[in-house]
Amino acid sequence: MVSTTLAATSFSLLRNYNANVRAFAANVRAPLQHSTNYNSINFLLPLHSRRSLSRVSVTNDEEAAAKAAALNAGSEAPTIFDKIIAKEIPSSIVYEDEKVLAFRDINPQAPVHVLIIPKFRDGLTTLAKAEARHGDILGHLLCASKIVAEKEGILDGFRVVINNGPGACQSVYHLHLHVLGGRQLKWPPG
Amino acid sequence: MVSTTLAATSFSLLRNYNANVRAFAANVRAPLQHSTNYNSINFLLPLHSRRSLSRVSVTNDEEAAAKAAALNAGSEAPTIFDKIIAKEIPSSIVYEDEKVLAFRDINPQAPVHVLIIPKFRDGLTTLAKAEARHGDILGHLLCASKIVAEKEGILDGFRVVINNGPGACQSVYHLHLHVLGGRQLKWPPG
Repeated sequence: MVSTTLAATSFSLLRNYNANVRAFAANVRAPLQHSTNYNSINFLLPLHSRRSLSRVSVTNDEEAAAKAAALNAGSEAPTIFDKIIAKEIPSSIVYEDEKVLAFRDINPQAPVHVLIIPKFRDGLTTLAKAEARHGDILGHLLCASKIVAEKEGILDGFRVVINNGPGACQSVYHLHLHVLGGRQLKWPPG
Repeated sequence: MVSTTLAATSFSLLRNYNANVRAFAANVRAPLQHSTNYNSINFLLPLHSRRSLSRVSVTNDEEAAAKAAALNAGSEAPTIFDKIIAKEIPSSIVYEDEKVLAFRDINPQAPVHVLIIPKFRDGLTTLAKAEARHGDILGHLLCASKIVAEKEGILDGFRVVINNGPGACQSVYHLHLHVLGGRQLKWPPG
């Protein structure tokens, strides 16, 4: 489904390479992607970064990257998701409305693997920041996960996952729901 | 944390043994549990059931049990969660308000493993049944997951999981969120 290089690429690592991406993207006009996979970010990475990414395992990537990302967890700084929302970085969009955006994970863990994010983060760097006032957007995100599952044809078998903090492999500090399906999902869930 | 027998017991299997449980429970007065684990249901199971449960692996249990449970997925029949909500079956309650109940999973997959359910199912046998009108309760459930994580001391590392259908190991057809933490959670999430 994805190349070896892509399989080792995660949003978290991309976050760490943000400065490189910015510098590189300024000089590159990304072609429009017709693939169903969200695979444009890799194109934006300098070759040396792609090579270094491909040398580590995905699992260790996620844990290590989550730990690295957590160093700035308290920050309200923009993340790579802001660029995706702004369409400054192309993504394979599955669903969109005025409140949320759903797009394919660049490092899919199942035949269907979609991320759903609120367009306005509103302090929700992570679910741990949720307050009663966030009830509406949180409910909307879960309703969106059903819509995404329906669109992807996995309504009879899908899992929604929300990671919070390094202990759960959260690698981007903008709340996001993972929607996975298209294969038998195992137990325990990680 | 749990006995071997308990480790092989799942809500889904209990659902399948519902008739036995009902017949047995009518003749047994379950003692009040002071343990922090939700382990009273096993006490209600006939010995032959407990033995058969202990012979299969947990992973296969979950997949097989989910497939069995799915045979009645379209049904609006009560589940074991209704008995837990009604306090007819004791549980280790972590949090409760007028809308939701959170209690420890009888078959924990992490040091902290709590289930959160809506007290009024309102058609939500599974997340796939979600409609816009369910937004409030869905948002409330996610807010409750943050409260549970806070109470359990895992706010800096927890994962929320919602299984939908047999492909995702859903074994009780009453919407429920799993909140897991207290250890490094892996990737992929099952």
